[in-house]
Amino acid sequence: MTVLSSLRQGIDLMYCNCMLTKKEIIRIFFLFQYWEKAEFPFHVVLKFAALHIAGGTIKGYGCPGHSVTASAIAVAEVARVDASCCTFFSVHSCLAMLTIALCGSEAQKQKYLPSMARLNTVDCWVEGGWILEGQKRRIGNSTFVDVLIIFARNTTTNQINGYIVKKNSPGLIATKIENKIGLRIVQNGDILLKKVFVLDEDRLTGVNSFQDTNKVLAVSRIMVARQPISMSMGVYDMCHMYLKERKQFGAPLAAFQLNQQKLDQMLGNVQAMTLVGWRLCKLYDKGNMTHGQASLAKAWISSKARETISLGRELLGGNGVLADFLVAKAFCDLEPIYTYKGTYDINTLVTGREITGIASFKLAFSAQHSRL
Amino acid sequence: MTVLSSLRQGIDLMYCNCMLTKKEIIRIFFLFQYWEKAEFPFHVVLKFAALHIAGGTIKGYGCPGHSVTASAIAVAEVARVDASCCTFFSVHSCLAMLTIALCGSEAQKQKYLPSMARLNTVDCWVEGGWILEGQKRRIGNSTFVDVLIIFARNTTTNQINGYIVKKNSPGLIATKIENKIGLRIVQNGDILLKKVFVLDEDRLTGVNSFQDTNKVLAVSRIMVARQPISMSMGVYDMCHMYLKERKQFGAPLAAFQLNQQKLDQMLGNVQAMTLVGWRLCKLYDKGNMTHGQASLAKAWISSKARETISLGRELLGGNGVLADFLVAKAFCDLEPIYTYKGTYDINTLVTGREITGIASFKLAFSAQHSRL
Amino acid sequence: MTVLSSLRQGIDLMYCNCMLTKKEIIRIFFLFQYWEKAEFPFHVVLKFAALHIAGGTIKGYGCPGHSVTASAIAVAEVARVDASCCTFFSVHSCLAMLTIALCGSEAQKQKYLPSMARLNTVDCWVEGGWILEGQKRRIGNSTFVDVLIIFARNTTTNQINGYIVKKNSPGLIATKIENKIGLRIVQNGDILLKKVFVLDEDRLTGVNSFQDTNKVLAVSRIMVARQPISMSMGVYDMCHMYLKERKQFGAPLAAFQLNQQKLDQMLGNVQAMTLVGWRLCKLYDKGNMTHGQASLAKAWISSKARETISLGRELLGGNGVLADFLVAKAFCDLEPIYTYKGTYDINTLVTGREITGIASFKLAFSAQHSRL
Amino acid sequence: MTVLSSLRQGIDLMYCNCMLTKKEIIRIFFLFQYWEKAEFPFHVVLKFAALHIAGGTIKGYGCPGHSVTASAIAVAEVARVDASCCTFFSVHSCLAMLTIALCGSEAQKQKYLPSMARLNTVDCWVEGGWILEGQKRRIGNSTFVDVLIIFARNTTTNQINGYIVKKNSPGLIATKIENKIGLRIVQNGDILLKKVFVLDEDRLTGVNSFQDTNKVLAVSRIMVARQPISMSMGVYDMCHMYLKERKQFGAPLAAFQLNQQKLDQMLGNVQAMTLVGWRLCKLYDKGNMTHGQASLAKAWISSKARETISLGRELLGGNGVLADFLVAKAFCDLEPIYTYKGTYDINTLVTGREITGIASFKLAFSAQHSRL
Repeated sequence: MTVLSSLRQGIDLMYCNCMLTKKEIIRIFFLFQYWEKAEFPFHVVLKFAALHIAGGTIKGYGCPGHSVTASAIAVAEVARVDASCCTFFSVHSCLAMLTIALCGSEAQKQKYLPSMARLNTVDCWVEGGWILEGQKRRIGNSTFVDVLIIFARNTTTNQINGYIVKKNSPGLIATKIENKIGLRIVQNGDILLKKVFVLDEDRLTGVNSFQDTNKVLAVSRIMVARQPISMSMGVYDMCHMYLKERKQFGAPLAAFQLNQQKLDQMLGNVQAMTLVGWRLCKLYDKGNMTHGQASLAKAWISSKARETISLGRELLGGNGVLADFLVAKAFCDLEPIYTYKGTYDINTLVTGREITGIASFKLAFSAQHSRL
Repeated sequence: MTVLSSLRQGIDLMYCNCMLTKKEIIRIFFLFQYWEKAEFPFHVVLKFAALHIAGGTIKGYGCPGHSVTASAIAVAEVARVDASCCTFFSVHSCLAMLTIALCGSEAQKQKYLPSMARLNTVDCWVEGGWILEGQKRRIGNSTFVDVLIIFARNTTTNQINGYIVKKNSPGLIATKIENKIGLRIVQNGDILLKKVFVLDEDRLTGVNSFQDTNKVLAVSRIMVARQPISMSMGVYDMCHMYLKERKQFGAPLAAFQLNQQKLDQMLGNVQAMTLVGWRLCKLYDKGNMTHGQASLAKAWISSKARETISLGRELLGGNGVLADFLVAKAFCDLEPIYTYKGTYDINTLVTGREITGIASFKLAFSAQHSRL
Repeated sequence: MTVLSSLRQGIDLMYCNCMLTKKEIIRIFFLFQYWEKAEFPFHVVLKFAALHIAGGTIKGYGCPGHSVTASAIAVAEVARVDASCCTFFSVHSCLAMLTIALCGSEAQKQKYLPSMARLNTVDCWVEGGWILEGQKRRIGNSTFVDVLIIFARNTTTNQINGYIVKKNSPGLIATKIENKIGLRIVQNGDILLKKVFVLDEDRLTGVNSFQDTNKVLAVSRIMVARQPISMSMGVYDMCHMYLKERKQFGAPLAAFQLNQQKLDQMLGNVQAMTLVGWRLCKLYDKGNMTHGQASLAKAWISSKARETISLGRELLGGNGVLADFLVAKAFCDLEPIYTYKGTYDINTLVTGREITGIASFKLAFSAQHSRL
Repeated sequence: MTVLSSLRQGIDLMYCNCMLTKKEIIRIFFLFQYWEKAEFPFHVVLKFAALHIAGGTIKGYGCPGHSVTASAIAVAEVARVDASCCTFFSVHSCLAMLTIALCGSEAQKQKYLPSMARLNTVDCWVEGGWILEGQKRRIGNSTFVDVLIIFARNTTTNQINGYIVKKNSPGLIATKIENKIGLRIVQNGDILLKKVFVLDEDRLTGVNSFQDTNKVLAVSRIMVARQPISMSMGVYDMCHMYLKERKQFGAPLAAFQLNQQKLDQMLGNVQAMTLVGWRLCKLYDKGNMTHGQASLAKAWISSKARETISLGRELLGGNGVLADFLVAKAFCDLEPIYTYKGTYDINTLVTGREITGIASFKLAFSAQHSRL
């Protein structure tokens, strides 16, 4: 039994509900040609539906009602073979559906969730502080979804409100962002809203403040922190297989000290990342997860994943720059993940504020507003 | 509640038996002046005795009978303030006493263990393949102990045997190693054995092969892997305190971005190391720990500790090179730990062999002896 | 005067012949849309011709006759804005043209070089040990060039010979390699030769051994080592400009400690890389460059460039993953460069052999062939 | 010819005046036993005198009148075998003597310099802003020197003045700093001045502002930046020798891939550091060296030296933690050097200010004092 499989067995006992096998996912998602062309593989939507994991932690309305840990595993497993598909699905399931489940009216839940759970309706999530007259950059899935969840500040009450906005609403424009080096399958758009009209029945009754959106964001942050772990596992597996099969100077690549040490370093990181990700879920389950802990996990994990996948890219030599060998694709996909949901630096300062009691984000402050 | 304290709380629930507080240890071991002079603080032996933790996992014979996890915590906690004292104690408790408990006769256990548990008798452990006519380099504690546990190959049977050898036995010479930059309190000696005579009653009846010594080494390896974790925690705590107290350019050091990020990186490493160390104990408890896993944990943890403590040394500026500020001492002490019980490189190749099935330690092989 | 401009001034005094300005190059090569589509921008060929730098060190035949240092600068400058174009041009000028200049007959030089210097004829270079019945993977430019320089082992004499092979020769097939994550503009092909017929006048008379190809490779290795330097300079410049222009929390990004430190680290690396690259040229000019030195420079420089460009990618945040901001493109382009002309590991072992006298590439050796 | 010797030859041609051989220095300074005891080897003072390098760049008065480059080499060479001795000598020659040469009266130069050049008089240098009633921490050499150069602010004129203060002056107290982990041979003291009386003839007539002290500091900064280069060279040499002599598993340590790669990485760093240090001298010689460049060189070089010497410590295994094997001593000595004359972070921000035009040292600023 290898160290990693033993690690997984040990860990998997803690994850009781995980139902995806790696093979199933590979069969579905071997999608580098879409990545190369920066196109979205719409046939994958049906395959996702068949897995019955959309909605994750939501109970009822056709959703599976998993624990956060189990749901996080299920979503992140997808990232082993393709981080773009994982991101697409995560936006749909962990941001949009969860918002309706946590903040929607009973009528809204019944209207939208079952269809979303079957991925008949696909959606995205747009955060920010603006009126429905406004704009927001780089929204995942936003170029093709049926439904957008949009948050906006009510200029009369100054409260945050949430809305379900349909595709093709007059005044809604989404412009696709081109030239991405990573997550090329994800269709990010710049959203422009010009006097978009929304029926009152499409207002999310449960959203009255940023605190309400934070309930959703807390779960989504866990999902983001887990993606680099699964990506690193996928890369480790590919490298392990590759080193044993390929030969150089008459011996398997796996027989060379320099290669063995890299593989060992990757495994050490994968083990540690897995445990850090697992602990974050457990803290959440117990209601003890803080902002600082989520930021620490996201920054630390994505930084170790950068190290790990970079080693993997090196191990594959010339094939390490071809997207069809999986590793090169993961190498590129990690970069937007390293940077989104708070850059590495911002996340270290969020944790820094929590452990020191001092905010160091901003440079200037006047005496009366000092947080020192 | 800070991230670290929350981390500890979460983790501590898993460690049910840990009974040391940091304050107790600091009161006992603030020992930099011994480190400076490379002398052993014999008054500490009595303080260790009072903690009732010697013998760790041994049941009966005046020993506490802890779980491996609890014992590992208790021993490693000492390393928060001084890694030399931890090493001294670890050799006594986890190598020598454990050997007698696992491999000694009932008479030997009754004769030695209770006295050792009270640290009335202090001992060391000498591994290797030689006859009692022989030598071995760099044995911790060996210059002053009452009793040495010595393993030797019986040249008639070619078996490994174990012996309890008393201080001052004719023919036994231990020469102190000078000029160490780390673990300066630990008295390492080069052992020379010239026709040393041992009574038959002092032969360890349970030692007949290297497999028998491996039972002891397995536990000792866990202890070694945990030391750098506690050292890193001690350094993190010191830095955290220091940054909040000291000022530069009119603000606490903790308010500067560069310092906050270093502190965050240290905490991320401490969290991950703690989890990796905890998992190693759990694998051992379930009987699933392999050589490769122990080596992976030791190499990965000590490598991350090197990163962490080096950041800490930088954070303390000019005071980071003075041993009385704790961090400089830990910085030096980590180096022998990084290198002993298998260097970093050797440990990565041990794991490498396990995960690839190919040994890459040696360079040359003829066709008939190939290990491929 | 900034540190970098001062650095360049100091260095540039040593580079007497450099005639390209950055602006000229930017005007010509702002080519991310070709990179995105993995297509070659054929209009660039004419612009290259207008620069009169093809042929570099070759004297006469319409070539500029620069020093190696000057030629290296001129070629590498292109990499500041696009490493693919630099690679395309480097293969044409420093491999193919140089081979004809060093190993061709007078008739061949007169026939090919002037046309190549004007880029009317574009070519590539195929190295290896095979007969004209054979194949070779990943040859840059090979899918569209007019002329291929091909080396082959004569199975009768067992000597290496060189040939000038024209596009569309019967039996010559070049298959484009798809799905590259870097140098996407460079058209790499897998070459297949099936009984390709070559006229005797197209045999390079000066190629009789691998030593003859080494004369060309020595120059080409210097060019490869310089590319990552220029790429890093281009990235540094972009980041420097970006940090001063963009604002966060009301202050320019350049005002934040974490950003300033990254910029400083990039500059420190750029300065050191520049000096190492400059020294390599000087060693070559004096006839003192060894294989080990070229490998050391290539491995060290490309490794520092990886560090530098990765910091730059981070500094640009979300725009650091878009190819039209230059940095993301350089981030991807560096990976094949890090790996080709000898991977990082192989190059370190080439130098390792030179400084220790011991080859460690291969695992096995029998007693009689041991190189120890 | 090895890469390094070739590197040195190439570089040495630029350093025309260097007159020290490594063997001479080793014979003189194999001083680990003083380091172990944290004592100063007074017999070394005479050996330094015999080298005729004290006074460095000073012309006349018994001084050698070297170029800055040559003087920097000569001083730094000492650090190959012992950084403490180099620091002792650097304080004497490049701070104290140079101050008298640049700022002293003709009478002072004649009185002090010849005796200092012969090291009959040994001195130190105390910088700061205080009156002769005052104190300053961590002054190298200050516990035993004959003469202290002291700078103080004249409370009447508010100008900076400089004084030559003799040992045993009433009111002058120097307390030795204990427990250092590095540069243990250097005797640092905390200086306390209580109404110390100085004759008017001992005032340095040329010191009227901080600008005057900067002339001295500029040279001293170059010396500090060079020390880590020589230390790294010394460590490289020791490792190179060690790997070729020692065996493991029946082959020289130098034959293992993991060891060769470390050696190669060390050499790559040494080469780059040497070039960066050489360029800094050249900039100074031409009058073009800025603060930012000196800080960049000091921070970058000492950071690469940390990497290099840490690799060396690992290569020596168990002997890498014993001070008598040179490498362990250098490992510890580097830490204070990394931190003094500006910590790594402060130096990166000094350069950062120069390249961005924005100071980021301080956190707070009011609108009217903003430097943005």
